Amino acid sequence: MKFEINDVMQILGTTPEVMKSQLYGLNKEWLMRNEGEGTWNPAEIICHMIHCEEVDWIPRINIVLSSDENKKFEPLNRTFGFEKIRLQTINQLLDEFKKLREINLKYLGSVRLTEDQLIKKGIHPEFGEVTLKQLLAAWVVHDLSHIAQISRVLAMQYYDEVGPWTKYLPILTQSSL
Amino acid sequence: MKFEINDVMQILGTTPEVMKSQLYGLNKEWLMRNEGEGTWNPAEIICHMIHCEEVDWIPRINIVLSSDENKKFEPLNRTFGFEKIRLQTINQLLDEFKKLREINLKYLGSVRLTEDQLIKKGIHPEFGEVTLKQLLAAWVVHDLSHIAQISRVLAMQYYDEVGPWTKYLPILTQSSL
Repeated sequence: MKFEINDVMQILGTTPEVMKSQLYGLNKEWLMRNEGEGTWNPAEIICHMIHCEEVDWIPRINIVLSSDENKKFEPLNRTFGFEKIRLQTINQLLDEFKKLREINLKYLGSVRLTEDQLIKKGIHPEFGEVTLKQLLAAWVVHDLSHIAQISRVLAMQYYDEVGPWTKYLPILTQSSL
Repeated sequence: MKFEINDVMQILGTTPEVMKSQLYGLNKEWLMRNEGEGTWNPAEIICHMIHCEEVDWIPRINIVLSSDENKKFEPLNRTFGFEKIRLQTINQLLDEFKKLREINLKYLGSVRLTEDQLIKKGIHPEFGEVTLKQLLAAWVVHDLSHIAQISRVLAMQYYDEVGPWTKYLPILTQSSL
């Protein structure tokens, strides 16, 4: 599939509504359970999405596009802001994520990226040089990955309930990484 | 997590909107690509959801609950109806699935299942005896599994685009089963 910025925008635009449809108004039983020690519950995943929207994707895009010679990305604290789930409802968190995404997509659209810009580079703290195109593709796949994770975390709560059907429901036997 | 029919209904009720948010109005580039030979594209997954809604979940529940002595479930043809994607738009398929699910959930709610009914059994063509509770849990996990699958199929189209990020995006390296 040829990489097109419009395709990127299309998927990034769907994510807040997908996550709202998955979680809006769900009861605590579904929202606060995870897949075991060190894993995230659905509410924590939304906190992570909010944090990425605030400090990760757009700031990194701006580092690549800027005329500044320092192209180093800040490392991301993946579990930053998880305490928000004690202060805000899931509906508030989902609305906050949606609002931030709308602002970020409006900004991304306004940049009108060119082919030349897509091959410009930044320095990832672990990977070293990465292109803007790779960063945008990773943003899309990161969204999709967390949608799948939310479904898996919910599914896992019925691991003991489905009996022999585990055989045809591989979502229950995948790694939680 | 204690099994409660209300929790089952809550997740089953979210699925049509989740899938609509994932796919409604997406362009063909996203909708018609799969994960390789023998795998399904997102539009085919919706055809499968429609077929299950028509011939699988509710008919099996009714077999368990009926006074008929024959408790055998019909085997499911998992790829039945895939040709629909040549005749209907994705939006039409998503609306059809949503309508069928609404009818089925209304019916399920009207049955007002008791604890005694939840341990009644049917005969699965491969597994043999299964309880109604297992069947309902499998319905929930089956939904969640296909939501995750849709996200994975979309993500996979950017496998070559994300560069070194594959390391932190395990959705790209899971099996497509």
